[in-house]
Amino acid sequence: MVIKMKVNVGISNRHVHLNDEDYKLLFGDIPLTKRNDLTQPNTFASELTVTITGPKRSIENVRVLGPNRSYTQVEVSKTDSYSLGINPPVRNSGDLDGASEITIVGPKGSITRNAAIVASRHIHVDKRIRNEHNLEGIEMVSVKINGEKGGIINNVYLKDSDEAYFELHLDTDDANAHLLNQGDEVEILIN
Amino acid sequence: MVIKMKVNVGISNRHVHLNDEDYKLLFGDIPLTKRNDLTQPNTFASELTVTITGPKRSIENVRVLGPNRSYTQVEVSKTDSYSLGINPPVRNSGDLDGASEITIVGPKGSITRNAAIVASRHIHVDKRIRNEHNLEGIEMVSVKINGEKGGIINNVYLKDSDEAYFELHLDTDDANAHLLNQGDEVEILIN
Repeated sequence: MVIKMKVNVGISNRHVHLNDEDYKLLFGDIPLTKRNDLTQPNTFASELTVTITGPKRSIENVRVLGPNRSYTQVEVSKTDSYSLGINPPVRNSGDLDGASEITIVGPKGSITRNAAIVASRHIHVDKRIRNEHNLEGIEMVSVKINGEKGGIINNVYLKDSDEAYFELHLDTDDANAHLLNQGDEVEILIN
Repeated sequence: MVIKMKVNVGISNRHVHLNDEDYKLLFGDIPLTKRNDLTQPNTFASELTVTITGPKRSIENVRVLGPNRSYTQVEVSKTDSYSLGINPPVRNSGDLDGASEITIVGPKGSITRNAAIVASRHIHVDKRIRNEHNLEGIEMVSVKINGEKGGIINNVYLKDSDEAYFELHLDTDDANAHLLNQGDEVEILIN
């Protein structure tokens, strides 16, 4: 039996999370001012950007998200990683095991950290959402995407937080391969 | 019943096919010299590149493939198209219905054509291959991809030619979204 339910897509372009210490090294006393809220509660895109540099090339204007976290993390697509010349692992956010070395350049300084990952496909959930959608005890699902370049994507993690907005987060490679736009509706498949 | 068979992946980066007239406008008397053979019989990557320009941005070093065809066609990924600022349709090679306007710049001149498409996912076949793999009469299949970012891609066309090398051709978005490398083995699914 396959249970199906709808979820909307949020597309994550390359971005950076910083810890307080690294933030200070890159931006000094410049405040982390909000540009716009993101869909997940209490998260925002800041006004600030950095340049990220790998062995092969740099990418400019990479958005810093807020608030700061306890770890510094650079999320890139596989396409970005070829451009940068790195080979980052696919990881859930916060799991930097084997993360690629990358240099982050801000207006006040630069840092080099083992911080670059390709983010796992994930769906944001909380207790209320799991309950409402009968998702209790489920760790991973597949998602069906319609359209001219549709298909099914596997290994989509359910990511818990205290308060979540129910949304599937994909990187730009997954979105562009499937011709998805922000807010498109797709279907969760549970075996 | 699902019939399964293996096929290897060939990844197509952005590239250009030219007709003789447009070739002449871009390159004049410069010969279309071969850099390396491609896997499909009698096709090659040439030593030549062009710049392609959309309303938003240009992409340099786009490879010209040979031999020339009866039509000029620019194959880009969806990611490229955002960069260029165009919105090309998904089309089988040679079908330029609704293709996006794009400017192609060569050393001797530039041309603007309704020539940009995102190529459909396709598998190269010929009579022998269709016979050998029981693919007679089949127009479209799905393909299963294993791995950390695996899944199933739909709408994969079987593309006939007189003499083909049996291979699944994907653009860089599909390849990178699924972490595929040139030559990787995937599985054709036929319902």
